[in-house]
Amino acid sequence: MRALIFDLDGTLIDTVYAHVFAWQQALAEAGMPIEGWRIHRRIGMSGGLFTRAVAREAGRPLSDAEAESIQQRHGALFRKLLPERRPLPGAVDLLAFLRAEGIRHGIATSGRRPEIDVSLDALGVTGDMVVVDRGDVLRAKPEPDLFLACQERLGVEIRDCYVVGDAVWDLLAARRAGMLSVGVLTGGYGEDELLGAGAFRVYRGVDELHASIDELGL
Amino acid sequence: MRALIFDLDGTLIDTVYAHVFAWQQALAEAGMPIEGWRIHRRIGMSGGLFTRAVAREAGRPLSDAEAESIQQRHGALFRKLLPERRPLPGAVDLLAFLRAEGIRHGIATSGRRPEIDVSLDALGVTGDMVVVDRGDVLRAKPEPDLFLACQERLGVEIRDCYVVGDAVWDLLAARRAGMLSVGVLTGGYGEDELLGAGAFRVYRGVDELHASIDELGL
Repeated sequence: MRALIFDLDGTLIDTVYAHVFAWQQALAEAGMPIEGWRIHRRIGMSGGLFTRAVAREAGRPLSDAEAESIQQRHGALFRKLLPERRPLPGAVDLLAFLRAEGIRHGIATSGRRPEIDVSLDALGVTGDMVVVDRGDVLRAKPEPDLFLACQERLGVEIRDCYVVGDAVWDLLAARRAGMLSVGVLTGGYGEDELLGAGAFRVYRGVDELHASIDELGL
Repeated sequence: MRALIFDLDGTLIDTVYAHVFAWQQALAEAGMPIEGWRIHRRIGMSGGLFTRAVAREAGRPLSDAEAESIQQRHGALFRKLLPERRPLPGAVDLLAFLRAEGIRHGIATSGRRPEIDVSLDALGVTGDMVVVDRGDVLRAKPEPDLFLACQERLGVEIRDCYVVGDAVWDLLAARRAGMLSVGVLTGGYGEDELLGAGAFRVYRGVDELHASIDELGL
């Protein structure tokens, strides 16, 4: 019994560039301007880790309250920039296919409820689907906790799980969890970066993954 | 006599992610929603080329007036998203250094005046610096026209010009112009993508290029 564990942002739903821009604005307002590409390369790790990494680079100590307030501001800017969410091509179809075929699958995201609810709705995710979010575990990606929690809830063996993600953090967390991983280009990382981070295969998006699903031996 | 020809957006000034987001919104409003990463991978080509490429992919014929109107809307959204421009780290210092050392240099951008004026101001570009923009040539990147026009105005040989850019379009246009090129990561492309497109060297940004400038044999 094999299973697919999906990242959410940049993998199933097209939110990466709005996240980058919202973080850039929230950090600049807090006196920590940082280049867009450095944010982009960190999307997918937990907001807390990310905020602290930026503060350390800026050489600026950051209280827990400040870190929390920057994260809140990011969330507000993000919702304003992107009130509606757009599933990536093929995402809704792929989830429906897996469900119809009885192939186990779940979502494991560094995002947090209720922030991710609009995205889940756009994907047509029903209440009985396994969704593990930031609030369910102690440590977000690149720690393996999210993927391991998802695997436990799916009731499959670690070695039978494939992680599908767009960011090196997904692939790193998959490695730490002892799972194989598949990369998709829809988050804006290049193919070589994803292969270099451990993806055993890279597709342009989940639509291409769906069309090539036999290659995964599911 | 060697010369450096710089791309502007993503190379000297941190605008790529705002451009991606503004294009995404302008195209969605025009009934052509498209994924962020596909826009990102096309930033740096001319707005006209880009708009037509997207329309072709969407299988939708586009009149000149519509293409122009989408470009105008992109410009308006971009200015609203990013009223102030932030030079990338080291950009202002590098330009001042080249000027002080008498090393010829110029800017060649697919952007258009007056849209680029705020960026040039933020970089401290003076009126006597060679700046070639979209309005000066018939064809933007990836055609070589912008770089060749810049090279002519700098009064140097083609073989003595280095192009510095963040996007594959810069590197492709440089090849077509017969110039060597250097890539920077500040536009969000990965190192392998830039090397694969022909950069003979890749730096994290123009600050690292500046620190390593002896490697270019200028």
